Amino acid sequence: MKFASYVHRGKASFGAVMGDGVIDVSGRLPGIKTLADALAAGALPRLADLASGMTAHAALDELELLPPIPQPRTIACVGLNYAAHAAEAGRQADKEAPVVFFRLPASIVGHGAPIRKPKASHQYDFEGELAVVIGRGGRHIAAADAMGHIAGYTCFMDGSVRDFQKRSLPAGKNFEGSGACGPYLVTADAVPNVSALELSTHLNGDRMQHAPLSDLIHSIPDLIAFISAIVSLSPGDIIATGTPAGVGVARQPQLWLKPDDVVTVDIPGVGTLTNRVVAE
Amino acid sequence: MKFASYVHRGKASFGAVMGDGVIDVSGRLPGIKTLADALAAGALPRLADLASGMTAHAALDELELLPPIPQPRTIACVGLNYAAHAAEAGRQADKEAPVVFFRLPASIVGHGAPIRKPKASHQYDFEGELAVVIGRGGRHIAAADAMGHIAGYTCFMDGSVRDFQKRSLPAGKNFEGSGACGPYLVTADAVPNVSALELSTHLNGDRMQHAPLSDLIHSIPDLIAFISAIVSLSPGDIIATGTPAGVGVARQPQLWLKPDDVVTVDIPGVGTLTNRVVAE
Repeated sequence: MKFASYVHRGKASFGAVMGDGVIDVSGRLPGIKTLADALAAGALPRLADLASGMTAHAALDELELLPPIPQPRTIACVGLNYAAHAAEAGRQADKEAPVVFFRLPASIVGHGAPIRKPKASHQYDFEGELAVVIGRGGRHIAAADAMGHIAGYTCFMDGSVRDFQKRSLPAGKNFEGSGACGPYLVTADAVPNVSALELSTHLNGDRMQHAPLSDLIHSIPDLIAFISAIVSLSPGDIIATGTPAGVGVARQPQLWLKPDDVVTVDIPGVGTLTNRVVAE
Repeated sequence: MKFASYVHRGKASFGAVMGDGVIDVSGRLPGIKTLADALAAGALPRLADLASGMTAHAALDELELLPPIPQPRTIACVGLNYAAHAAEAGRQADKEAPVVFFRLPASIVGHGAPIRKPKASHQYDFEGELAVVIGRGGRHIAAADAMGHIAGYTCFMDGSVRDFQKRSLPAGKNFEGSGACGPYLVTADAVPNVSALELSTHLNGDRMQHAPLSDLIHSIPDLIAFISAIVSLSPGDIIATGTPAGVGVARQPQLWLKPDDVVTVDIPGVGTLTNRVVAE
């Protein structure tokens, strides 16, 4: 199943995606107004059942999609988690522990929304990633138990402002509207083998990044264990698993995003996240 | 005036602090349930007027104090903003741009609450700081206008897990309950000259850090300008302005926080923030 969060006719809601339509399920069960509420209540299977007997309320192209979880408590991101990307960055990947940082929810938009090249920089870069959506929260989750805490997956564009990142990583990773997540939460049962997934990032139709998820240095269970040793994970939290080689800063010549560029993160079986760059 | 956020008899509220008591002002004005709501509505002067005619509802020592703003959208922190601290860290302070990172709200507790030494580390360290509380939000705030966006000040303890910080700064700065903020928001009119403030951090009564706020490399207006070029600031957002020399990691021998240690951040005119360390 796929679930989306969106605005339709001025109202924020969420629903089950069926073909090219969406079935609004917000408020169908008591107290469940958002997709994060549904995750916290473990209600996705019931909502999927409800939705399967109904017809679409709206076509997808009538909606303004939001990130699948518009306001996660925690958006944790992982750096240098593909060996070839660490190498192109001139860094040694740390096999003992991942590089972890956090993004503010305001730095992320949904599929189809404009992503913003900051005024303050001309070194705006793309990073395509697979993101995990947490279903069941917890602290100190053991790697052996971690897959049971995953609600599903989505695509992530960890837009990076390199000149700011050089001075302080978190600054370059938190520009407002510089990243994206979506289009949908695809439930974990629909992704039986994450390692078999392949990720591609395209810029204006040209392939910039391509790697199998089996290339991750720190596996998804290890990431969940590591991050939940720092902070409690909550339903709806996002873990972006890192980007493969091919980013703009590492190219010769360097390649920076400019207004009207179109960035697409494509993970067959999970989704295609497309965003057009606008000047802030 | 001073305003506090707290839990009293199981109920979260906020109020004006008068002597050793607090006057609950939550809900006194329509739609204003939290201190962040009051900041967004510009209602602190009206609430102060209301409170001045009333007697205290509760003694401060009956309350469980929360951070003055329990759930800010953004907690921005600044690194290496005192020359002597940069030197003890073996780093050169960057005079052109500050080092900025972000803390998750879950990493911060209020005055009097236990701060948690993580299971995963024995390198838990203190950093006393002055924090700014944003009153009027905005993006791209000019330094010349920045003081008008400040609601007030409070104390901040940027608890740092050094072994994790070494690998990735944001990881070491975001352990759950490892930092603190409070005890109150002191309104800006009560702090006419921030540069005249002096900050001290004590560990079990021994002074560990001491510096005047006039030592800041990047001034408060410059920090507000820099951070608001990255992300919109909202009422209730927190900017922690950096720590002076004297942290545990830079001492010979190194000094790490252990259970039952008491950390006090004291800024006369702003407040005294005290927290006892517990083992997670």
